Amino acid sequence: MRSFWKTLTGLTALLGAALLLATLIGLAEAAARIAFYEQTEDEGRLANKRAYLEGIAVSAADSNAPAQVLPNIIVVLFDDLGYEDLSSFGARAIRTPAIDQLAAQGTSLTNYYAPAPVCTPSRASFLTGRYPVAAGLPGVAFPSDHLMTRWKQIQGENIRLPADEVTISEVLEAAGYHTGMVGKWHLGDSAPSLPNDFGFNHFYGSLYSNDMPRFHLYENRAMVEDEPDQPELSRLYASKSLEFIDAAVARAEPFFLYLAHHYPHIPLFASPAHAGESAGGLYGDVVEDLDRSMAQLIRGLQQRGLADNTLIMVTSDNGPWFEGSAGDVRGRKGNVFDGGQRVPFIAWWPGNIPANTSRDGVTGGVDLFPTLLELLRLPLPDDRDIHGRSMLPLLLGTGDAPPRMLEFYAGSNLFAVREGRFKYHVRRPVEYNLSSTLPISVSLPQGPWLFDLSLDRRESYDISTTHPQEMQRFGDYVENRNRQLKSNPRAWR
Amino acid sequence: MRSFWKTLTGLTALLGAALLLATLIGLAEAAARIAFYEQTEDEGRLANKRAYLEGIAVSAADSNAPAQVLPNIIVVLFDDLGYEDLSSFGARAIRTPAIDQLAAQGTSLTNYYAPAPVCTPSRASFLTGRYPVAAGLPGVAFPSDHLMTRWKQIQGENIRLPADEVTISEVLEAAGYHTGMVGKWHLGDSAPSLPNDFGFNHFYGSLYSNDMPRFHLYENRAMVEDEPDQPELSRLYASKSLEFIDAAVARAEPFFLYLAHHYPHIPLFASPAHAGESAGGLYGDVVEDLDRSMAQLIRGLQQRGLADNTLIMVTSDNGPWFEGSAGDVRGRKGNVFDGGQRVPFIAWWPGNIPANTSRDGVTGGVDLFPTLLELLRLPLPDDRDIHGRSMLPLLLGTGDAPPRMLEFYAGSNLFAVREGRFKYHVRRPVEYNLSSTLPISVSLPQGPWLFDLSLDRRESYDISTTHPQEMQRFGDYVENRNRQLKSNPRAWR
Repeated sequence: MRSFWKTLTGLTALLGAALLLATLIGLAEAAARIAFYEQTEDEGRLANKRAYLEGIAVSAADSNAPAQVLPNIIVVLFDDLGYEDLSSFGARAIRTPAIDQLAAQGTSLTNYYAPAPVCTPSRASFLTGRYPVAAGLPGVAFPSDHLMTRWKQIQGENIRLPADEVTISEVLEAAGYHTGMVGKWHLGDSAPSLPNDFGFNHFYGSLYSNDMPRFHLYENRAMVEDEPDQPELSRLYASKSLEFIDAAVARAEPFFLYLAHHYPHIPLFASPAHAGESAGGLYGDVVEDLDRSMAQLIRGLQQRGLADNTLIMVTSDNGPWFEGSAGDVRGRKGNVFDGGQRVPFIAWWPGNIPANTSRDGVTGGVDLFPTLLELLRLPLPDDRDIHGRSMLPLLLGTGDAPPRMLEFYAGSNLFAVREGRFKYHVRRPVEYNLSSTLPISVSLPQGPWLFDLSLDRRESYDISTTHPQEMQRFGDYVENRNRQLKSNPRAWR
Repeated sequence: MRSFWKTLTGLTALLGAALLLATLIGLAEAAARIAFYEQTEDEGRLANKRAYLEGIAVSAADSNAPAQVLPNIIVVLFDDLGYEDLSSFGARAIRTPAIDQLAAQGTSLTNYYAPAPVCTPSRASFLTGRYPVAAGLPGVAFPSDHLMTRWKQIQGENIRLPADEVTISEVLEAAGYHTGMVGKWHLGDSAPSLPNDFGFNHFYGSLYSNDMPRFHLYENRAMVEDEPDQPELSRLYASKSLEFIDAAVARAEPFFLYLAHHYPHIPLFASPAHAGESAGGLYGDVVEDLDRSMAQLIRGLQQRGLADNTLIMVTSDNGPWFEGSAGDVRGRKGNVFDGGQRVPFIAWWPGNIPANTSRDGVTGGVDLFPTLLELLRLPLPDDRDIHGRSMLPLLLGTGDAPPRMLEFYAGSNLFAVREGRFKYHVRRPVEYNLSSTLPISVSLPQGPWLFDLSLDRRESYDISTTHPQEMQRFGDYVENRNRQLKSNPRAWR
């Protein structure tokens, strides 16, 4: 009997070769006809943006308050760090004393969602206050000459953050801040979408994830490290952050630092000085390196006398990937279950933000932009929708998170919406975690689903049949939003 | 630009059609050469099995103890019920008072693993005490004329439980029990692998899952329900169970009942009388129907005066699929993370099994066979490896679970091993839960991994680098087992 199996295998191999040849011929034919989508920005939108930023610069210059009383702002973004990867958020195998101390002296958010379940759209949304489709970059960015980039261009997708987007760095620069970024950009690798093009006076870091081809380090627009010393990357980034802070101090300007660490995204490299110390293995070592990097930064602030007037926010771009713990909820990086997007968030600003406080209001990375603008009493741009809501009252302990529909996207698709205790999932393929020897898994269409997170934090029990009114309301909301996403994806006003 | 995209789409469609045609031609050619694997059993093995069962029958007949003092045994197996789907195991949205009462009056196991992460191999292993490969049925069974069955035959796989396997029902029948099965078989749909062929004196139920084509109900070998009333299935099964029990009582024989419910496997149907009552939606309703079915059965036992000498065991065949909660651990049905196989287990036997007790020793469904044989002081078959270990001392409160390597399989592949606090995963593709509009997900090779479940119950932190000796030990174990699985897959002695 087995000989027939061998015969079949042989035939299949022959057939496979024939199919491959046919595919190559077909693709070559198609390639001859393909023109790539060239991303360009509308001049009118660019002019609107310049006018908005100039308005902010003028009102900042007119302001009676001297620039020095503005708080310094540090936003630390980890890459693929899960909800439970910090000891203050429940980790037992990993110790993060420096970050825990920020939590002990500040406010932690327990229902904070990264804006997307993967890197690029999460960052695009985080920096602009707009959902990934509106920010123009709903998918993962690859190097310009990467095959995936070509494929995106064939489909008419952007491959870099559109220059007409307004980032928080541009607003803060206009408002008188010295602005710096250290770490991973991942929003395009060509002008006009580089960090220095988006309001960062100084940039030190890389343009992609450390698992992508050609992982180089840049200082502003120049490559300075061909092959970075990855085990020392987190420490290097703290040093480069302090160098930037020194430059800001020398200019007598308040500073905004966006420190976007590469870890614990894979591949993982731990500093040899501490390798093997964590009970959480290599992953734990890498997270503990991040914590030491944070300690180094805080020590640097204290030594410079800057700790009293600096707002530090610490969070992650999405849930954990193959390792790392999402806590006790469903899902991981790449999907819209809570495990894919619910991540730690800590805000520290002694004397302003209450110590040792935890808030459970629904918030998200899309809220960073309006939060910082409210803090500085700056107007939002009025030519576009800003989807975030200010978290400032929640962080200062003066109010609650506003009622809102928080949207969850996978690529360009609106896949879920959370409002209060409810989370609604549209009908879509849900992966069936079939462990097999094949490098693919199976998905089957499921839903629409409605979960009551107050009873069912693991998104396990669809209550759609007993909640027809909620289903109607969420269904209508999604239908309306899908119409808008089609007619006006960039949410211009 | 978009017109080129349309051109490409057109070309791709043409190419696709050409590929499809080529594939069909190729497959037709291959089909002309294929002979299906015809499953046959070795006469020598069958003779050994008959001799073993005859030996048990002879010693049972010789025994001084009258048959009546043997305890009745009921094993209730749910389908796809998750660890946290019972209120006694932590469910907040679902109420299961009847099952909770069994837990309150009995012993619950918190580290009990179903033998496999999907239906068929789990059941094959559960009934034989041997890992799925040894039991001869490592994959999911489909109807005889299903395309998947043909594909399995082409690959030389069994499509029914081999007749040379020894099931617990056969042993108990030989030992003097009246044996009955109610519910889902899922171990083949043709002789000699039907329930009545494997020691069940009586069978009422179906041969497959309720999501498979032609979901019929059989009484012994005859089809009795063409289109079962699925919303009343759980209630019907309790009634049929009590009918079987009455027949056993009439014969003055102790009984063994294997009640294998269809739910909460999808598709879900709730009894109209209680639909909408559960806070867990339709899934919750279905689980609460199962609980009412359990209440009906227990009431029936009490009315017949049988409750005092009946051992009841309640468990599930694997973790939850699209709905249902695996609790606070990683994974779901279909994979070897704890969420795929750690399921509830309750044993109830007042006066013999301690009340309101919870034990955390590592156990599994593969242990059922040796547990019941130890209970009845029957010898294990000696011509084959029995992989399970008796849980009897753990259940009776007289001892602990024995130290052991518990193996986790996906199909024919040994993918993980648990020993004490350690769980070792071999290098294999791990699904990346990418929510997309495509019906496939992505997997990437990961591992080998070592997790310390005492610090990291969510299998999130690989500690292989700091535990080289454990890695060596587990690696050697797996290598040795893989050699055995290749040279002697059925584990004959």
